[in-house]
Amino acid sequence: MLTTATTIQTGADYIDSLRNRNLTVYLFGERIDNIVDHPLIRPSINVVACTFDLALEDPELGTAVSPFTGDRVNRFLHIAQSAEDVVMQNRMQRRLGQLTGTCFQRCVGMDAFNALFSTTFEIDRQFGTSYHHHFRTFIAHMQRQNCVIGGAMTDVKGDRSLAPHQQADPDLYVHITRRTPDGVYVTGAKAHQTGCLNSHYLLIMPTLRLTEADRDYAIVGAIPVDAPGITYIYGRQSCDTRSLEPGTMDAGNARFGGQEAMVILDEVFIPNDLIFMDGEYDYASMLVERFTCYHRRSYVCKSGVGDVLIGAAATIADYNGTDKASHIKDKLVEMTFLNETIYSTGIAASHSAIPTESGAYLPDDLLANVCKHHVTKLPYEIARLAQDLAGGLVATLPSEADFRSEVIGHLLEKYLKGRADVPTEARMRILRLIENMTLGRNAVGYLTESMHGAGSPQAQRIQIARQSRLAFKKDLAKTLAGVLTMGD
Amino acid sequence: MLTTATTIQTGADYIDSLRNRNLTVYLFGERIDNIVDHPLIRPSINVVACTFDLALEDPELGTAVSPFTGDRVNRFLHIAQSAEDVVMQNRMQRRLGQLTGTCFQRCVGMDAFNALFSTTFEIDRQFGTSYHHHFRTFIAHMQRQNCVIGGAMTDVKGDRSLAPHQQADPDLYVHITRRTPDGVYVTGAKAHQTGCLNSHYLLIMPTLRLTEADRDYAIVGAIPVDAPGITYIYGRQSCDTRSLEPGTMDAGNARFGGQEAMVILDEVFIPNDLIFMDGEYDYASMLVERFTCYHRRSYVCKSGVGDVLIGAAATIADYNGTDKASHIKDKLVEMTFLNETIYSTGIAASHSAIPTESGAYLPDDLLANVCKHHVTKLPYEIARLAQDLAGGLVATLPSEADFRSEVIGHLLEKYLKGRADVPTEARMRILRLIENMTLGRNAVGYLTESMHGAGSPQAQRIQIARQSRLAFKKDLAKTLAGVLTMGD
Amino acid sequence: MLTTATTIQTGADYIDSLRNRNLTVYLFGERIDNIVDHPLIRPSINVVACTFDLALEDPELGTAVSPFTGDRVNRFLHIAQSAEDVVMQNRMQRRLGQLTGTCFQRCVGMDAFNALFSTTFEIDRQFGTSYHHHFRTFIAHMQRQNCVIGGAMTDVKGDRSLAPHQQADPDLYVHITRRTPDGVYVTGAKAHQTGCLNSHYLLIMPTLRLTEADRDYAIVGAIPVDAPGITYIYGRQSCDTRSLEPGTMDAGNARFGGQEAMVILDEVFIPNDLIFMDGEYDYASMLVERFTCYHRRSYVCKSGVGDVLIGAAATIADYNGTDKASHIKDKLVEMTFLNETIYSTGIAASHSAIPTESGAYLPDDLLANVCKHHVTKLPYEIARLAQDLAGGLVATLPSEADFRSEVIGHLLEKYLKGRADVPTEARMRILRLIENMTLGRNAVGYLTESMHGAGSPQAQRIQIARQSRLAFKKDLAKTLAGVLTMGD
Amino acid sequence: MLTTATTIQTGADYIDSLRNRNLTVYLFGERIDNIVDHPLIRPSINVVACTFDLALEDPELGTAVSPFTGDRVNRFLHIAQSAEDVVMQNRMQRRLGQLTGTCFQRCVGMDAFNALFSTTFEIDRQFGTSYHHHFRTFIAHMQRQNCVIGGAMTDVKGDRSLAPHQQADPDLYVHITRRTPDGVYVTGAKAHQTGCLNSHYLLIMPTLRLTEADRDYAIVGAIPVDAPGITYIYGRQSCDTRSLEPGTMDAGNARFGGQEAMVILDEVFIPNDLIFMDGEYDYASMLVERFTCYHRRSYVCKSGVGDVLIGAAATIADYNGTDKASHIKDKLVEMTFLNETIYSTGIAASHSAIPTESGAYLPDDLLANVCKHHVTKLPYEIARLAQDLAGGLVATLPSEADFRSEVIGHLLEKYLKGRADVPTEARMRILRLIENMTLGRNAVGYLTESMHGAGSPQAQRIQIARQSRLAFKKDLAKTLAGVLTMGD
Repeated sequence: MLTTATTIQTGADYIDSLRNRNLTVYLFGERIDNIVDHPLIRPSINVVACTFDLALEDPELGTAVSPFTGDRVNRFLHIAQSAEDVVMQNRMQRRLGQLTGTCFQRCVGMDAFNALFSTTFEIDRQFGTSYHHHFRTFIAHMQRQNCVIGGAMTDVKGDRSLAPHQQADPDLYVHITRRTPDGVYVTGAKAHQTGCLNSHYLLIMPTLRLTEADRDYAIVGAIPVDAPGITYIYGRQSCDTRSLEPGTMDAGNARFGGQEAMVILDEVFIPNDLIFMDGEYDYASMLVERFTCYHRRSYVCKSGVGDVLIGAAATIADYNGTDKASHIKDKLVEMTFLNETIYSTGIAASHSAIPTESGAYLPDDLLANVCKHHVTKLPYEIARLAQDLAGGLVATLPSEADFRSEVIGHLLEKYLKGRADVPTEARMRILRLIENMTLGRNAVGYLTESMHGAGSPQAQRIQIARQSRLAFKKDLAKTLAGVLTMGD
Repeated sequence: MLTTATTIQTGADYIDSLRNRNLTVYLFGERIDNIVDHPLIRPSINVVACTFDLALEDPELGTAVSPFTGDRVNRFLHIAQSAEDVVMQNRMQRRLGQLTGTCFQRCVGMDAFNALFSTTFEIDRQFGTSYHHHFRTFIAHMQRQNCVIGGAMTDVKGDRSLAPHQQADPDLYVHITRRTPDGVYVTGAKAHQTGCLNSHYLLIMPTLRLTEADRDYAIVGAIPVDAPGITYIYGRQSCDTRSLEPGTMDAGNARFGGQEAMVILDEVFIPNDLIFMDGEYDYASMLVERFTCYHRRSYVCKSGVGDVLIGAAATIADYNGTDKASHIKDKLVEMTFLNETIYSTGIAASHSAIPTESGAYLPDDLLANVCKHHVTKLPYEIARLAQDLAGGLVATLPSEADFRSEVIGHLLEKYLKGRADVPTEARMRILRLIENMTLGRNAVGYLTESMHGAGSPQAQRIQIARQSRLAFKKDLAKTLAGVLTMGD
Repeated sequence: MLTTATTIQTGADYIDSLRNRNLTVYLFGERIDNIVDHPLIRPSINVVACTFDLALEDPELGTAVSPFTGDRVNRFLHIAQSAEDVVMQNRMQRRLGQLTGTCFQRCVGMDAFNALFSTTFEIDRQFGTSYHHHFRTFIAHMQRQNCVIGGAMTDVKGDRSLAPHQQADPDLYVHITRRTPDGVYVTGAKAHQTGCLNSHYLLIMPTLRLTEADRDYAIVGAIPVDAPGITYIYGRQSCDTRSLEPGTMDAGNARFGGQEAMVILDEVFIPNDLIFMDGEYDYASMLVERFTCYHRRSYVCKSGVGDVLIGAAATIADYNGTDKASHIKDKLVEMTFLNETIYSTGIAASHSAIPTESGAYLPDDLLANVCKHHVTKLPYEIARLAQDLAGGLVATLPSEADFRSEVIGHLLEKYLKGRADVPTEARMRILRLIENMTLGRNAVGYLTESMHGAGSPQAQRIQIARQSRLAFKKDLAKTLAGVLTMGD
Repeated sequence: MLTTATTIQTGADYIDSLRNRNLTVYLFGERIDNIVDHPLIRPSINVVACTFDLALEDPELGTAVSPFTGDRVNRFLHIAQSAEDVVMQNRMQRRLGQLTGTCFQRCVGMDAFNALFSTTFEIDRQFGTSYHHHFRTFIAHMQRQNCVIGGAMTDVKGDRSLAPHQQADPDLYVHITRRTPDGVYVTGAKAHQTGCLNSHYLLIMPTLRLTEADRDYAIVGAIPVDAPGITYIYGRQSCDTRSLEPGTMDAGNARFGGQEAMVILDEVFIPNDLIFMDGEYDYASMLVERFTCYHRRSYVCKSGVGDVLIGAAATIADYNGTDKASHIKDKLVEMTFLNETIYSTGIAASHSAIPTESGAYLPDDLLANVCKHHVTKLPYEIARLAQDLAGGLVATLPSEADFRSEVIGHLLEKYLKGRADVPTEARMRILRLIENMTLGRNAVGYLTESMHGAGSPQAQRIQIARQSRLAFKKDLAKTLAGVLTMGD
């Protein structure tokens, strides 16, 4: 149960909290005044609302007791106090994936909170700064308000072969452009920001290892989502406009969807007490690596989404009358095997968490990278298998409008029938759900975001290389081969 | 060069030939009068037009000398007279895939022509019928007119665990409902018919092995696309409505797309001289197996489509400034390796073609199935790698309308810049092409159709099992192991 | 520290404990009197000795406090009292794999102990028998003596398509042939028994689900390894006779190896107090399933063996001068990624352990099967990559005798040189180690045993199917697709 | 039919031709006088003999008409005059793989002949030398004598990060050490030379691209196998000494095996008329690339070996009584699918052969590399699946000596029985054949040689990268995306 001091409690409260903000949001070239009731955007809000409802319905899973407030707070705002806390994040993530079939957008904030907690602690220890103190105050405030936090890390990056200060345009990475006694002003843009419009605060963070020449890029701070100077440009998703069409069938998953937008910062102010790094460029890599360590095993959520897709595939096999075929059963086993591999590697990373100096627990980095690296591959294979079980109709099904047509609807009712005892509409709806998850709106979250979120595949390989302890392993081999004693 | 007697010569001629037909076509619940100029349908027509233009521009590749007319005819209408003819089909298919980046829709007709040619020959030989004679006349006519033929094989099938005559509704497979002295009437529906509206004639064929109880389902015949009694319901594709939006960027491949529709036959008449099988149910499996033998290695086209996607991936790496990274180069190698595997297995199947009794050459069935089976997997992996190289922006890019906006367009121009010397729009267009081929309209052709067209994966495995010569291989092993002489 | 009452403490003690037993052991058609000093067998004994030395050197890892004796006992004899105990088994297994590069043979006994502990508890509860009491007594005795337990489950099975009682020869599964007031006599044979000769006791167990007709096959009991009536026939391993050759290079891993033998039981007596199941055929499947649940995630040991092989591959790259090549570094990443996948899935299974009614903790069965299923594939791929890095010499290297030859040794010294500063012999030794692990003696343990130990791949797929909760997942999909409310 | 002038006709003739040569051969540190009757070496000679017998039994497959002699000559000595000739090499290779289950050792010579034919032609054209004329004379001589040619390319290489002239020891690549008016003397060593002892002549060739500093390494010439100055050191294979044991079961494939030895050249003379390159270092890469082009698709032989292993796996499933299980059948399909992929990619490369300026046909290099690259992976997976079907006994089977023992033989007869109607020995023999091909002697040829022969995997990736026509493919993508006209 959340504390009574909490402003936002239910999903409905949360949705209300997003109203009447003065945001500059563009979609299809038009400014959107009311994002909450926009039919293309609303599914992405509904899914965040689930994270509030889960906290009420299953507080063991969705909340934790905060060491800062002493109260139960939403787990997405909690700093992990034990390995079990880290594991519980994964369990909550899988459950929310199961309930929504898409990205519920709050992991970035949770993982940024945890990574920044220990990083500010270590910056302060070295430099005598007070970032950590300010950050704890901010955390407690957010926990009491029960806010949604977006973590804004990924810069637009321009030419990937150049460092921030080498770019033709200095704004291609977010950086400080001006300082006042009260704070700093930043300019730049963050690409594909998950759930940014659905958040209350954004944590601005650098996106890569920095050097002294990039000192002005070493800025971390919190800004309200509706701070002056921010322009949001909504990203297109595959099949996004189906949400604008009448009916609910063709969307596949009409209620839930992801959200990614470009966030453009034009001289946005960060006050001193919300600045959590300023110029300590050496710590940019620690922050990025700890954030990605948490976040890479946060992709356990995709095993929850995978549960939905496995369920959809099993259902369409039932509806088609193919569920008894041995190859169909075997493909469902394969999907399960792959899906549980994602889950297992995440759980292992979380279970092997160790305490940082700040007390916050950090997952095992090697295993977290193993988890995410699987996520860049296995959902694609699960999706391929789902399309296999679905049959070709998944990509050639006529529209809901045809199905509802008084003239030809009966023809579709007749000819799209699978097993005689299953309503044609049920079969169509499951096919649309599979389309949604393998080609449509939620394929963005299940596939492409699985590829690039928390770092593209090569980023994991680099990290795996760093953690692979080759010298230790070479010694194992040399010992058994009898060469260690040969002077090598 | 096509003969002067040919009615249709250029792609433009072809497009004109589709006008003013009296078709009953539904899309989004509305009847479409003019399919040719419908912005959602037109890309699928443009692509077929390419098959005419190629015949003019590269007659060696796009045409062959017909033994029936003595003239050069479009290769899609040609009966293969040699293994080299079969190989040349593959070369043409790859080239057209390269030029269009999608399905050009004429292979089904070509493969149906070839399969039916030898099957009618063998039916006549057994039963003394004259299907083959009629069919040769039809072929020559089509060659002279230079028509597009659609092959309508896939029934809607209802409950997959039941035979045609066992279905709750007898119409779930196309069958004869009435006979007159002049011909027969058929009822039923064919699902996801590639290029049906873009054809001049459809060849109706059964979709699976039949028994005596299914005798009325053993019907093969040609019908004009605008025959009375046909209703076409257009299938939805991922992102199909982007073709209805202003601009050309968001479509990704604005000019070309595939087409699949449901074809519903309500008492459609087939005159006697266009009937090529009627009740010889034993030959349904020969027709299906020969058709799929040709068609499974026709998926070599996807290696041409793959060339486009590899090119797009290499281009976006250039634009992002990542083209020098060893892992990027290696992924392009992997994509090429996989893509050429599709091509090679198809070429091997075609090169190993053997003559049927009719003189038409038939590819090696085992290798044709190996080819198609790779096609059910490798394009998915190539697409996954393309998304890897593209970066996350492929699924979060703002709309063209935003880019064109006078208010915010300059922000996207600035922040979506990759390498400084590449126009932002060029980068966006390549990303949209990759989206188109991996999630959007042409992902249907490149991925889902690759999975299910010409038979779903398990169909190939069954055929591979049949062709695997296990008894021969067991003897090889027993000989070397020294057990053949032991009485086993 | 082990208790002072323990007979066996060090590895050396253990080796001594195997002397002077009256065993009937055959190898190459000859009876072997002294297995301990037989050069082909000794490596398999050395490896078990490591499990004793580890307990002394790292008691946290290698021992646990027994609830039965109150003392620290070897972890291989411990009944898991918590999920953490189950996880610690995995950590110990990986470490021993690292130290030995092969199978250390004690997991079967550990897993059989744990599985039988809870199964006997539940049999007694249903039938009022006293198997559990007797078994606890036996466990405490073994812990005090610090004995090695072999678990004998796999029957020779004859025709796999027939149940035990249907076989042409009733002895193809171990069964009771005679009863006396003091106990029972059993006959039959157990195939490829890991470490049987190196054990002090064998636990005889059924190998599959039994029915009433197989009642006499439902026998579980403990027998001393030197019980009258047992004949052991040693299994051949690839390259086994290299251990008989002079020198240590060609063996690759001269000190350690696995052991698998056929155990033939001819009227072997089991006294009443060592019988732990007799006729309760319904519980055979519980015992088998719990045993395989523990044992399938025990294959985490292979990640320790994999560490050795990764180290060997990295070393040979150093020696060849190829360690800086990006593709070499990437292959080491891939090997690590795959190896940690084995570890992670095992850890996740162990971490998710739940208590049985007996109090013993049982791993998560779904994840345990996921772990083992990876083990049936990934070591083969790691081995393939190791051979890639090794170069062709791994399979064409001349013998140690050639290298030591006064006539031609200098030629090999000269021409087998890799990097100038590395002794040729060091390079040869590492190549031999890689050969040993990918083709030679320890390839049996690293590859073939990984395939079939604890059940062949299909056994895992069946178990994954059972645990896949499809009904739950279908409901997730139906809810999101909006069909749950449609009456389906 | 071979010409009557041919010295060697039958396999038996061939074996006789190897007697009474004065070779310096070492094995296990001992000099071997009579290689022909040495039990460890003889299987490697038997397999070459098959290439002679095949030419007699199936001259269409095993021979071709030489343009130099006008007679039918063994196809291994034939210069390909057409694409069909290139394809026929593949067909012959598959057949010999089927008959022997291992490497028949003559492809290197065949491929070296063909590559050198066109390369000498082009050297002469540029430099006015007469290598090609001499080489044609040599070819005709070899064809008339019906000799076996070994191609000696792979130098021992020392430190792989250094060029030949940079090595600490100049002899680590074969080079000219002395010149006389009559010819040159060379020193160095060639590693893992397939079939060298079984040849009559060796073609010495450089192993990589050379620069001017490596001019003395740019030497190509023919030497008789028994030329003064050569020392052969036989390479060990896994389980090689089983050929020295009594009995034929444990060898698995007692009759046939591969052969690889180190060839050490100490001032070996090459007369002028057998020198085919001397200092034209620019052509070293042409020779290497053409040789590998031929040789990489020569690995089609492994599909013949794969046929044996598939047959063995299908047989053991029969013997175990598991042949009806759907997963067993499916694994046989998978093995076939993978095996035919090797064959198909090879056939496609050969079918796409084009004429060189010399008239000799050269396979398509891209597809040849695709073929070989599959060969570095797929046999490993086929072998893994064969072990899956075999069951664990494949690696734990007692020895033939145990089976023949009067004391315990009956126990094995009883307990190793599979299906009741199959002799136990038959089951054991098939298991030993699978062991032979997946872990034993012929695993060297089927697996490790598949990995490294004709170049290790990365060599193919480099070549695929070179042939991938990225600029062409980028233009395809840019055209469809509409960016070609944008000035990019």
